[in-house]
Parts: sequence; C-alpha cells; structure tokens
Amino acid sequence: MATSNFSLAEKWLVKKIQRSIGHAPVRMVLGRDDEIPLPGVDSKPRVIIRDRKALLRMLLDPEVGFGDSYMEGRVEVDGDLVRCLEEVFRSMHKAKAATWYGELLSRWLAWAQANTPRGSAKNIHRHYDLTTDFYKLWLDSRMVYTCAYFPTPQTSLEDAQLAKMDHVCRKVQLGAGEKVIEAGCGWGALAIHMAKEYGANVRAFNISKEQIAFARERARREGVEHQVEFIQDDYRNISGKCDVFMSVGMLEHVGAEHYTQLGRVIHRTMGNSGRGLLHFIGRNQIRPFSTWIRKQIFPGAHAPALREVMDIFEPSNMTVLDVENIRMHYALTLEHWLARFEKSTQRVQEMFGADFVRAWRLYLAGSIAAFTTGSIQLFQVVFAGSECKRIPWTRAYLYQDQQEIAAEKEPRWIRAMS
Amino acid sequence: MATSNFSLAEKWLVKKIQRSIGHAPVRMVLGRDDEIPLPGVDSKPRVIIRDRKALLRMLLDPEVGFGDSYMEGRVEVDGDLVRCLEEVFRSMHKAKAATWYGELLSRWLAWAQANTPRGSAKNIHRHYDLTTDFYKLWLDSRMVYTCAYFPTPQTSLEDAQLAKMDHVCRKVQLGAGEKVIEAGCGWGALAIHMAKEYGANVRAFNISKEQIAFARERARREGVEHQVEFIQDDYRNISGKCDVFMSVGMLEHVGAEHYTQLGRVIHRTMGNSGRGLLHFIGRNQIRPFSTWIRKQIFPGAHAPALREVMDIFEPSNMTVLDVENIRMHYALTLEHWLARFEKSTQRVQEMFGADFVRAWRLYLAGSIAAFTTGSIQLFQVVFAGSECKRIPWTRAYLYQDQQEIAAEKEPRWIRAMS
Repeated sequence: MATSNFSLAEKWLVKKIQRSIGHAPVRMVLGRDDEIPLPGVDSKPRVIIRDRKALLRMLLDPEVGFGDSYMEGRVEVDGDLVRCLEEVFRSMHKAKAATWYGELLSRWLAWAQANTPRGSAKNIHRHYDLTTDFYKLWLDSRMVYTCAYFPTPQTSLEDAQLAKMDHVCRKVQLGAGEKVIEAGCGWGALAIHMAKEYGANVRAFNISKEQIAFARERARREGVEHQVEFIQDDYRNISGKCDVFMSVGMLEHVGAEHYTQLGRVIHRTMGNSGRGLLHFIGRNQIRPFSTWIRKQIFPGAHAPALREVMDIFEPSNMTVLDVENIRMHYALTLEHWLARFEKSTQRVQEMFGADFVRAWRLYLAGSIAAFTTGSIQLFQVVFAGSECKRIPWTRAYLYQDQQEIAAEKEPRWIRAMS
Repeated sequence: MATSNFSLAEKWLVKKIQRSIGHAPVRMVLGRDDEIPLPGVDSKPRVIIRDRKALLRMLLDPEVGFGDSYMEGRVEVDGDLVRCLEEVFRSMHKAKAATWYGELLSRWLAWAQANTPRGSAKNIHRHYDLTTDFYKLWLDSRMVYTCAYFPTPQTSLEDAQLAKMDHVCRKVQLGAGEKVIEAGCGWGALAIHMAKEYGANVRAFNISKEQIAFARERARREGVEHQVEFIQDDYRNISGKCDVFMSVGMLEHVGAEHYTQLGRVIHRTMGNSGRGLLHFIGRNQIRPFSTWIRKQIFPGAHAPALREVMDIFEPSNMTVLDVENIRMHYALTLEHWLARFEKSTQRVQEMFGADFVRAWRLYLAGSIAAFTTGSIQLFQVVFAGSECKRIPWTRAYLYQDQQEIAAEKEPRWIRAMS
C-alpha cells in the first residue's frame, strides 16, 4: 500500500477524530511519517492511518471506521494493540455519543440482525459454523468457547475451563440423576462434563449444525450418548421438564426483546422448584453492543445490563440467589486465546484470508481491552423457582475442595427451615 | 371479650375471606366454637375471629384487617403463628390482587409516609426511637438490628452478628486507614467494628436521635471516638470523600423514587475508584411493601426488586461485583429475636401496652414467614466505581480464615491485569 501525502485539511480531520475518541493518549500518524504530535505523550502506541478512505471512515464512525480499516490493513497499530484499545476505551467513555452515521448503522444492524427464529439461525451460523477446525486452532482441548474460571491467574487455560465447568455445576449443586436442560451448548463440553462427572441427564440445545454434529460424535466417543442428548433446535422450542436450567454464553445471542420469552421457557421447563444458572457478557448500563463486533464478528449480539436480565426472572417470581462478576477472568481467557491465535495466523490466513486474521485479532484484543477497562462485564447469575427447597445455606462449599465437603456432617443445602 | 354468635351470613363472609387468601390450609373459627370446617385439613393452625369488627376489617383488606385485629386481640391464632402465616403467604400469592380498600390504603400510606427529608425523619423516629431500652430487651449485646450471617445454623446470634459485620467488611476488602462513609448506622455497632477491627476511619450517618446519642457514647466508651464520627443527618446531606461506602439495612427506608439521588450521593463520595456494599431487604418482583407493616411498624418502608436497585448504580456507570441472597439467615435471625422478645413480653407490655406486644409479635413472626416463603429476600450487593482497581480475583478469600489469608503469597485483590 502506497504511503499517501496528506494535506493540512486531512490533519485537521485527524484532530477531529482524536476529539471524537476523547483525546485518548495514542498518537495518530498519517502515512509513514506525518505524525500529529500529542503534547506530553511519547512511547505511546501509534495508530498509523494509511489512506484517505480509512480517514473518512473513522470520521463517519470512529469505532466501525477503525475496525473495518484495521481489518483491511488501511490502519495499523504500532505497539501493543490491547493497550492501545484500552486507552481508547477509557477515553471514549468521556467523549460525546456516537456520530449520526454510527447511530444509524447501529440501528440498521439491530433491525437486519434481529434474533427472530430465522434470524438467530443465520446469526449463529455465521459465527459458530466457521468450521470446527478453525476453533480447534486456538481454543482449549475441550473446545470451551466461553469465559474460563482461573482459581489463580497462573492456572492454565485447560485447567481453568475445567474449573469453570465445575464452578457452574457446583453453583447449582448439581446431583446425580438430575435432569438438566442446557440452552446453547457449543461443542458439548459442559453437557458431557455434567453427565460424566456429576451423573446428570442432559438435554442440550444449539442451533449451530456444526457444533451439534461435533458434540454428538463426542458423546458417542466418550460413552455418554445415553445420558446426553444433543438437539439442534432454537431455545424457544425447548420442551420437557428439568431440575436444572443451565446456559453458559448463550444469552448474548438472545436479544433483550426476547428475555420474557426465555423466562417463560425456563419456567415451563424447571417449574417453581427448579434452579438454574445464566452465564453471560453484560454491562453496567443499557447500551447497544459494539457496532463493529455486530457487523463483522457476532451478528445480533447484545450484552445486557442486569436490569434487562430481570425480565427473565420477574414474571414467574424466580429468585436471584447469587450474582458473580468475573470479568477479569474473561480478559485472561482472551489473552490465552489471542496468544494461541497468533501462533496459528499462517493457517488461519490460508483458510480465510488476511482480512479475516486482522479482524479476529482486533476482536480478541478489543475484547480483552473491553473487559479490563470495564466496558463489558461477565456475570454468572444463579436463580431458583419460587418454591425451590434446594437453597445453599452459605456459599462456603463453593470454595472448599470436594474431600472437605465429603467429610462434612452438615448438608450443603438446607431445606426451608420450617 | 365476649364470644359472639355469628350468623349464616357471617359464615359466608368467612368463606369470602378464605377465598381472598387463596384458601390457605388454616381453619377459621368464629367466636370459640363455630368452626368453618375445611375438608381434608386437620391439626392445622386455627384463626379465631372474636368479633364482627374483625370480620369486616378482614373482608375490607385481609392483610391489614388481620394485622390490626390481631394487634387488638380481636383475632387470635391457636397453634404456631409462624407456620400459620407461612401457609397464608404461600396461598395468598395465588389469590387475586388486593381489594379496592387495600389498594387505596396502600397508596394513601405511600403518600402520607413519603420519604422526603422531613418525612424520613418522622418515619425513622417512629420506629428507631422507640427507646433503646426496648431494643436492648431482645437484640444481641452489640445491638445489631439487621440480618445476621450464620456460618452454620447452629451459630449463636451473638457470633452471627459478629460474622455478618466481618462478612461485609471482607466483601469490600476494608483496609487499615481507609475512609468509610456509613449510611444508616443504627446504634453504631458496625461503624465501631470497622474502626476497631479493621483500622478504618468512619463517618456514620443516621437520623435517629436516640441511636446517634447511644452510638457516640459507645464510641467514647470503646476508645474509638477519634476514628468514628457519628453524624445526625439525612443520607442526602452526606458530604466528603471515602474509599468505601457502606450501608446495611437502610435502603428499605430510602424509597425507590430516591434511588437515583442515593446513587449521586454514593458517586459524589466514593468517586469512580471507590467500592461499596448495600445490604437490604428485597423482593423478586416490584411490589409495595406489606401495608400492615407500613401502617403499624415501619412507616415508609419499601423492599426493592433488584431492577429498582439498578437506579443507584447505572447512572454513574458503577459495576455490580457480587450479589448474595441470604434470606434464610434473616429468618433465623428473626427466630432468635422473636424467642428473646417472647421472654420479655411482660416488660414490653409495661412499657407500651398489650396491643404493642401483639403487634410486634406479629411483625417478627410475619417477617420469619415472609423470608422462609420467599415473599421477601435479603440481598448484599457489592459494587465498585468504574475505575476501581481493587477488584478481588475470586471470592475464595471470603471463605478462608484470616490465618490462611495472612499466610498467602498471592494478593487477595489484583490490580487491572495490565
């Protein structure tokens, strides 16, 4: 790509862009050398704008303009991409709201990617059916594509994904022989874990064809095909009864306008005596999800504020028992993924091209920055039906090891005191 | 009180009342003997309606009618009062909504007891200034009038109140020399505990004159008067800065319409880097608080749904880190209080009369039933400003003892990973 010569007017435009991202302490550079100096800031990451198209796009909408231009190689970042994005996220919060173009694009995407039954199928297909081989390149060996739980920051990704699966199973006090419905089961890791390690009978739903095919084969291979049924269907069509409703990393794809419907599905299946867990990316405030991520990576995605999530629980009088925010664990999970991804870029480029590699690098790095700066959160919500008798007395058992628990005289859950 | 002879029409009215409470399996008895038989139910508690006034009141509004009549001795309960109320609460949920009279009364109380600065002062005075001597009769020795935390159900009330104070201090990772603002400090137990045990500097607010006077004297007696300042003022007037904002059992008296204002106070004092905890009685759904309790016990009280509480956090982009629901601990706390109260009824009657004794018995027993049946919940919400760096990595440290923590090499909180 040729280095352009930029005019004074263009330099003025760069200043406008800097204002729109709240004067984040990153240097903007035109072409290779026409740096716009930023007083008092050095050794900071440099954003190199390579052509006029990138400049105009970023003027129209800094986020999508930057994302698309980065994807196409029209913008580069010299320095640590994650740190650069962290600086921008911290500053953007203080800057004024989206441009008219950004606002329009955001609304148009919300409409075009609406999570109707047909829309969801399309949205999920686009991301999760990118081929299992692609995800195998950088996920852990169990293929868990959700936030891990690291007992300490030094825990390996493999162990942390295992710890996460145990963490959510223990949070709902999953017992042998219990019926579980899992909504959005990915490649089946958690469903199979619940069957093998907890003796649960699981019916797991997912609308990704590739993931379901993989999960079924895996259940056969692991000898739990009689305990785990993988069903290729929309959460809206979930039928049957369960003791425990489990959903890890699906709520982001439901859309806030469908939460009362999801609540009806949960209540229909677990009744007033069941219990459940939702694990999802959330936010402090009600806001649309990143427009660029929706455009290029996760069509139809939405990270809800806790207020919105209450639409699921309130109508059927469900009780929220426990909310844990482990957003820094997602940042760390993503660091592992990004490091593994970077080792496979050659292979990914052969599969999908250079633009894809850059887009996914930006998605993974941007997600790290969004979690570390608190732009997004990771919530695990444990809830129960209004007549559930299996309420833990305290949460201490979650932090004891299994041997300690086995040695205890007292039950880990207490029936209603009466 | 004379036993009345009730007519057929009155017996028909009793059936109407039974319908209005969802046909709870309790027997209603007119006078001493005219029992209205309930098929298939025996050895259940009996509600004895002693006169026509009680009957008509319960027809107008089952809750307030029952409460006021019980208070005046026009209605008695033969059998376990708590179990009886539990049955009613479970059934009432299924019955139709309030009567027109009940609806009107509820709205009138909401207006008459509104938590304006002047209204709050009146409301708080009515309950908390009943005299410290009265509360000394049945609270623990530290005078903690909020839900305790029982590591096991066998823990004593004294130990459980101590454990609760440590639980909330550890949840916010209170450190020596930190500045705490406490909103609604009761008789000062927690403020003094934070100063003595954690080395914090506390400014504690309360509009109850009696409580503040007691707390100041206590701080002097315990030698922490330079570390703890007790201020008789409304939470709306809180000024100054803090590291930690703490409020245990005050939110119930704020009123949902003032939550954004409370949020501004919290944000003004702790800024974007502070952290805090709110401990309060909540609900699964948005509903007015018990009309009878508001009329006779807690004027202006409201137990919010989590959705309502988000008004406090959202506007200033605060993050919810942790929500714990320990409603069964409040049921157990209240069982301790009720047992102690029953031992002091002679003395209470001398102080305030027989109606007062019955009203408070009903309040304490009814609160137990409301918690065990899930009509109300007890939430502890830990939150942090958008730039808070002191976020715990996991919650495991809450469940280790202090020696284990002291021996650890790893910090219990991790600065943003970057």
